[in-house]
Amino acid sequence: MAKAIVLIMDGVGDLPTPKTPLQAAKKPNLDKLARDGITGLLSPVGRGVVPGSDTSHLRIFGYEPKICYPGRGPLEALGLGMALKEGDVAFRANFATIKDGIVIDRRAGRIDTASATAISGLVSMKIEDVDVIFKNSVEHRGALVLRGPGLSHCVSETDPHAEAAVHQCQPLEAGPAAEKTARIVNKFTQDVQKRLSDASENKTREKKGLPQANAVLLRGAGSFSSVPSFEERFGLRAACIAGGALYRGVARFIGMDIFLVPGATGDKDTNLFAKGKAALKALETHDLVFVHVKACDSFGHDGDFKGKTKMIERIDKELMPLLIKSGACIVATGDHSTPCCRKEHSGHEVPILMYGPEERSDDVNNFDEISCMAGGIGHITGKHVMPMVLNLMGKGKKYGS
Amino acid sequence: MAKAIVLIMDGVGDLPTPKTPLQAAKKPNLDKLARDGITGLLSPVGRGVVPGSDTSHLRIFGYEPKICYPGRGPLEALGLGMALKEGDVAFRANFATIKDGIVIDRRAGRIDTASATAISGLVSMKIEDVDVIFKNSVEHRGALVLRGPGLSHCVSETDPHAEAAVHQCQPLEAGPAAEKTARIVNKFTQDVQKRLSDASENKTREKKGLPQANAVLLRGAGSFSSVPSFEERFGLRAACIAGGALYRGVARFIGMDIFLVPGATGDKDTNLFAKGKAALKALETHDLVFVHVKACDSFGHDGDFKGKTKMIERIDKELMPLLIKSGACIVATGDHSTPCCRKEHSGHEVPILMYGPEERSDDVNNFDEISCMAGGIGHITGKHVMPMVLNLMGKGKKYGS
Repeated sequence: MAKAIVLIMDGVGDLPTPKTPLQAAKKPNLDKLARDGITGLLSPVGRGVVPGSDTSHLRIFGYEPKICYPGRGPLEALGLGMALKEGDVAFRANFATIKDGIVIDRRAGRIDTASATAISGLVSMKIEDVDVIFKNSVEHRGALVLRGPGLSHCVSETDPHAEAAVHQCQPLEAGPAAEKTARIVNKFTQDVQKRLSDASENKTREKKGLPQANAVLLRGAGSFSSVPSFEERFGLRAACIAGGALYRGVARFIGMDIFLVPGATGDKDTNLFAKGKAALKALETHDLVFVHVKACDSFGHDGDFKGKTKMIERIDKELMPLLIKSGACIVATGDHSTPCCRKEHSGHEVPILMYGPEERSDDVNNFDEISCMAGGIGHITGKHVMPMVLNLMGKGKKYGS
Repeated sequence: MAKAIVLIMDGVGDLPTPKTPLQAAKKPNLDKLARDGITGLLSPVGRGVVPGSDTSHLRIFGYEPKICYPGRGPLEALGLGMALKEGDVAFRANFATIKDGIVIDRRAGRIDTASATAISGLVSMKIEDVDVIFKNSVEHRGALVLRGPGLSHCVSETDPHAEAAVHQCQPLEAGPAAEKTARIVNKFTQDVQKRLSDASENKTREKKGLPQANAVLLRGAGSFSSVPSFEERFGLRAACIAGGALYRGVARFIGMDIFLVPGATGDKDTNLFAKGKAALKALETHDLVFVHVKACDSFGHDGDFKGKTKMIERIDKELMPLLIKSGACIVATGDHSTPCCRKEHSGHEVPILMYGPEERSDDVNNFDEISCMAGGIGHITGKHVMPMVLNLMGKGKKYGS
């Protein structure tokens, strides 16, 4: 049975100014796959719909976000390796700096990861009958999990996203669960400020003139509820290679195995060669390997056309030769467009290519938004991807007889 | 009003090695229809989904298998001309040879049809309050119907599909109906073995050194429940010309009239000229004629590229001229791909062409998987076919005012 690699270049789609980054980039390997395989355009969520990265990845991997999207918090928590239980409510959490009750730095001066780790133990606590569990990741970032009876994710965030007081957490639905959760969150916000203000690490930072990490801001509340695993759904053992916590979180949520790769940062400096090597390793034990590259999206958000173009060239040069060498079927696409001229996600389709040794080929010779308009796949949405991947691999189950 | 012929070439879609059989075949008539008509690619069930022949035909003719698929057994029984009643449970049935309780030949040496007919009367019986009704078709094949109160199709098959004991039939759902059905099936399995072992035909076979047909194996259980007819649904009187029992069964299930054609075997030797003549005859009295040709699929299952290519050439030469001569609108497609390199159904799209005297035409000049990628129909699924056929015929009903 053929194995498959699904490469998702985050936010790779763009608009022409007058070329798109994919058109401008020198990318002989992706173009060769387009020439030898079949191409088209993908709307991960739906035609014209602006996808989030999380919903898009879920949809591409065969999960309907309308049914099973747990919210950003649980996906981030899972991505940090936290074990979640049914009913847990999770948030994205930021270390921040407050002064006289006002958030003066939402990122606590982008506190270094070591300092954040040093004080992270102070953030976990017990409030009423609820365990409040924190884990930090890179710099000021982390995730917070509330575990206990009768909680709800229908509560407002505490992050003011501005120089303002930390927001009070409010219940967003009637009933005792949201009320209790809001009460716990507000107590947490108070208690963690007191604990952090007293922390020796913060006193050291104060002496050095660094912003104190004396508050934790919460957003992206979501309730965890498990879903049938990717292997149960599709009969494929799948692995994920991604630097960004969110993508690892989506992968863990659907039961993929996470391959942690030193140097895979989820950032512009990520080690693509190391990711390619890890993909080859993962293919030895897994049927499908999901490889994620984040930085195309980051360059799009920065409006950096040149950076995005270079990143695509790096993917083509440093990652693609290894993926091609694997002999596996290859699917390459993006999770959405992040046009440099917009600096945010857009609902424009992303090119997709499917390559396999047996596959039909169309007349398209280049992997970009414009060339793939004429591709033999046509226009598909995210829900079509997994049936097509299974068929590509020769693993589709017959419907009927 | 225009009439229409829908030609379904079973399993005609393929993968390029380096050409597909449709690309390799000399087929001037199909190519002329592609040139003069409009083409595209069809996923009968859904993009990438591997269709069964039964579900695919239902979907193409406007029936949603998720709602009304009765299972293979009832369709085979209907295809053999058996009359089914609401609640009947039907199976596909095989004569087999057992020795010391082990199935040593699942097909009783492909017993000749005459011998099978000679003993077929012994297979029907009454068990408890259930009529067990058997009809044989070609060689070892047949269908078995259970008719009585409180039956369920949720029971396991008895065919071991290997040299092993006949499987016990097990209920696959809770409740008395499945238990009763399993009990009847197991009693049937025992009783029919005793009856057949004593049959004079089998004693004759034994003397001739032929495998005895001393057991009947069951699979494909399904419950019959009628659906609104094709004529009620679409206002079209439809006829079916097909050699294979399954396709006649699907047609009867949706209320098409069956035209039996001597020499239409559903096999590689089928008389295509006779089928074409029958189609012309059927068009005199019917609005839509469904013509089915099985053998492309059979050659695909055999991995016989040359045979499949030749079969397409035969269709083009022996059948198409008659269909074209009819003056009817013509839709030609397949129910799924059966790539010779895979020897089984796949989820790759099949080309489709629609030709009518008024119809739009695209730039496609050849009827094959690759040329039709650029066709003016684009990519459609089975549910789109009937509305498009009605529109082609000028018989679409206005939605709104």
